[in-house]
Amino acid sequence: MCAGIGSESKENGMMSRAKVLTIDTMNPTVKKVEYAVRGPIVARAVELERELSEGMKKPFSEVIKANIGDAHAMGQQPITFFRQVLALCSYPELLSDSTFPEDAKSRACSILNSCGGNSMGSYSPSQGIESVRQDVARYIERRDGGVPCDPDNIYLTTGASDGIVTMLKLLVCGEGATRAGVMISIPQYPLYSAALAELGAVQINYYLNEEKFWSLDISELQRALDEARLYCNPRALCIINPGNPTGQVQSRECIEDVIRFAAQERLFLMADEVYQDNVYAEGCQFHSFKKVLFEMGPEYSETVELASFHSTSKCYMGECGFRGGYMEIINMDDDVKAQLTKLLSVRLCPPVPGQALMDLVVNPPQPGEPSYERFIKERTATLSTLAEKAKLTEQVLNTVQGISCNPVQGAMYSFPRITIPEKAVKEATDMGQQPDMFYCMKMLEETGICLVPGSGFGQREGTYHFRMTILPRTDKLKILLNKVQEFHLKFTQQYS
Amino acid sequence: MCAGIGSESKENGMMSRAKVLTIDTMNPTVKKVEYAVRGPIVARAVELERELSEGMKKPFSEVIKANIGDAHAMGQQPITFFRQVLALCSYPELLSDSTFPEDAKSRACSILNSCGGNSMGSYSPSQGIESVRQDVARYIERRDGGVPCDPDNIYLTTGASDGIVTMLKLLVCGEGATRAGVMISIPQYPLYSAALAELGAVQINYYLNEEKFWSLDISELQRALDEARLYCNPRALCIINPGNPTGQVQSRECIEDVIRFAAQERLFLMADEVYQDNVYAEGCQFHSFKKVLFEMGPEYSETVELASFHSTSKCYMGECGFRGGYMEIINMDDDVKAQLTKLLSVRLCPPVPGQALMDLVVNPPQPGEPSYERFIKERTATLSTLAEKAKLTEQVLNTVQGISCNPVQGAMYSFPRITIPEKAVKEATDMGQQPDMFYCMKMLEETGICLVPGSGFGQREGTYHFRMTILPRTDKLKILLNKVQEFHLKFTQQYS
Repeated sequence: MCAGIGSESKENGMMSRAKVLTIDTMNPTVKKVEYAVRGPIVARAVELERELSEGMKKPFSEVIKANIGDAHAMGQQPITFFRQVLALCSYPELLSDSTFPEDAKSRACSILNSCGGNSMGSYSPSQGIESVRQDVARYIERRDGGVPCDPDNIYLTTGASDGIVTMLKLLVCGEGATRAGVMISIPQYPLYSAALAELGAVQINYYLNEEKFWSLDISELQRALDEARLYCNPRALCIINPGNPTGQVQSRECIEDVIRFAAQERLFLMADEVYQDNVYAEGCQFHSFKKVLFEMGPEYSETVELASFHSTSKCYMGECGFRGGYMEIINMDDDVKAQLTKLLSVRLCPPVPGQALMDLVVNPPQPGEPSYERFIKERTATLSTLAEKAKLTEQVLNTVQGISCNPVQGAMYSFPRITIPEKAVKEATDMGQQPDMFYCMKMLEETGICLVPGSGFGQREGTYHFRMTILPRTDKLKILLNKVQEFHLKFTQQYS
Repeated sequence: MCAGIGSESKENGMMSRAKVLTIDTMNPTVKKVEYAVRGPIVARAVELERELSEGMKKPFSEVIKANIGDAHAMGQQPITFFRQVLALCSYPELLSDSTFPEDAKSRACSILNSCGGNSMGSYSPSQGIESVRQDVARYIERRDGGVPCDPDNIYLTTGASDGIVTMLKLLVCGEGATRAGVMISIPQYPLYSAALAELGAVQINYYLNEEKFWSLDISELQRALDEARLYCNPRALCIINPGNPTGQVQSRECIEDVIRFAAQERLFLMADEVYQDNVYAEGCQFHSFKKVLFEMGPEYSETVELASFHSTSKCYMGECGFRGGYMEIINMDDDVKAQLTKLLSVRLCPPVPGQALMDLVVNPPQPGEPSYERFIKERTATLSTLAEKAKLTEQVLNTVQGISCNPVQGAMYSFPRITIPEKAVKEATDMGQQPDMFYCMKMLEETGICLVPGSGFGQREGTYHFRMTILPRTDKLKILLNKVQEFHLKFTQQYS
């Protein structure tokens, strides 16, 4: 009997030790999060790479990851000056090394002087190193033709994603029909949908106009907003310019319209401007929301609440791994700003090497400094190669029957529309897969090319797309584009 | 009349442009967040520093920030080897520089080989660089006397804070009486209370036993849990060992008891072990929860869910600014793990320089390698200095009437209890201030010493404390302790 009790209590003990945390008992909002850029297709690409390296036979010799804007991984070289300064900051003994240029050394000294104990190993203020914020402010003033920028409005971040999530976090509130809603473009960068899902906010979709180079129509904003007001409390409008995944560059006129719309409809504006140097198409130019806002006069510049985001990860530097970024915040209520600062303090500070890198991006070598020429040469080479690849991608894809592609005016992606035969749509649907996921998976298995299906970004019902970066080296990009072409023809034949 | 309409509509326009985001319309959970370590007292310290630098007269010549465990800011030197490797990784041209030791170069090469395009500027996998996770796993195995560790259970993080918040995020769920509750020690590190407030979870306080060197009593855990079950759904138990802010080091026996308690009560265990190398008191030793769990046999090791956290910010390296860290996750449900990986992918990856640094911490120079002796010398010097300062702090503070201080067995802080005279308590309360905040503010204004009041960490009702780091250089620490002593006497006299 003793044994009986013992074993019973042991069994109870074991039963009571079923998992605490299961898919049924975990945070339900986390379950709703989706992020296609690193989704199942990328997991499969990683598997394929491993299989290849283990000698398994595949119809290709290499996996090409064109799924993510990861420039250095695709062979882009870092800017020499930036890395010299980072090395000096990491190991200040190098300051006595005569092979480093003097401007790199003076930049490193000024960064280290702003760090506690002259070390990048110290925490910075939660808002970011003060001198870096001052440099960011001066950069914005130069960029925006003298529109003033207050360093107190600059917050350094862990990449742009961190800033965007933080701002969304401040904005969400309410329950049921008064739940906060946030307007995002469709197609969108899925950080937005993921963050809104996690925060329990309502995602309000407005569709970009694919027929007009993915432009933004105010009438579509109005439609989306009017419908959303019936079931939630729309509070913010997010814009990505230049566009991700769609590569459009907004006209100045369009930005003015958006600002007027936000003012009239009382929406907090969030401008994701991480591709601000990535403008390739003739006649296109980057206009910052901040600049346009201030040029519209005090009626707007003194009232419209705006957060704009930048990063070290894109443009000509492509330094994703350092997770550097900043946000500028205009017209934010002072009490809310205090709450923001408090919220940031819990995470202590953004990574200091990323802050240092952000400082170099906004304060690169100047004419007359020893590193200037090399810097300009490297930057120009990268940006002009990207411009060539943008054009090449558009041209080759548009030669393929069943693929049609808007010009890649800016950013780093092409988002072509693809025709998927009925039979393939049916087969995918029967498998419970999105047709363009089915298409991209097949492409990956047959060619080793990893793209992201359009369904991961959102698209008009019944249309299909994929996102492809233009980042592979030109020779590789040509091979890749040819393979896409071949695959598309074969796929179309197979399912016709 | 036209003008009238115009001005009316303009007025409406202006009115309708009242701020979108105000303290009343912002996310209410963010408002509940508090984080004393960087709270109002630190803001005032920064102001005082500015005032001093502007030549304003103060009763002190320098502000000493003993509020935060920021070793390099207090003058601690980085480990040479770590910084050499980071410089090499930042600027690989240095690999041909003969002044760098060969082991630093080979370590840098192996890190760069694990980075896309051999650059720290590439994104890593969201879970962290695979080879770094393997090195972490081998480190844990060595640390824990051979208990196996699977690299798939290792997640690299942006400092330990990031890992802790992510785990809490998975655990929260429910509403009202079934809202998730998380047990945290009082006193606690306020990251926990801040994260729980933001996530809308219930904070369940269990009190450490100040009379017994801040030890953890299972009966107190039981009391806290039983009470909490009446109004929430307790899901997790957080432990900080060695303790922050209280500096205790848990005995092996106590850890076993905690594990048994967690198993029996079905709680997910979270072990914050960022101070694992910071153990000073004789007879004390760090025991990892993982090791103890596995030595308790399969009944526990195969069932109890555990996440443990480590960081590059503390121990002998003190590299806070790089935001490196990892978590190891044991017995997590596979579906939940997939959700965790997905959630992490939204933020792309932890900063790569922080990952590189974490790799060096878990894989430092080995006997026979050129950098070994220097590394050991530097590490030993830092840790033995910290041990001296821990002892010095305890001794000096305990000589002061009205201050009583437990031994600083580990970590980086002293958390002495202070007697605050009735009159001062009343004056503080009349001002709407916590009495120990009042005390610390006065100390800051009169001496320039910045401490954090105990109320920011939680304490038993009617008791008062402050947290002070032991990090200032020994000569400065002596001055600081003397000033604290003088201030306390003066304050006591003034309010008696």
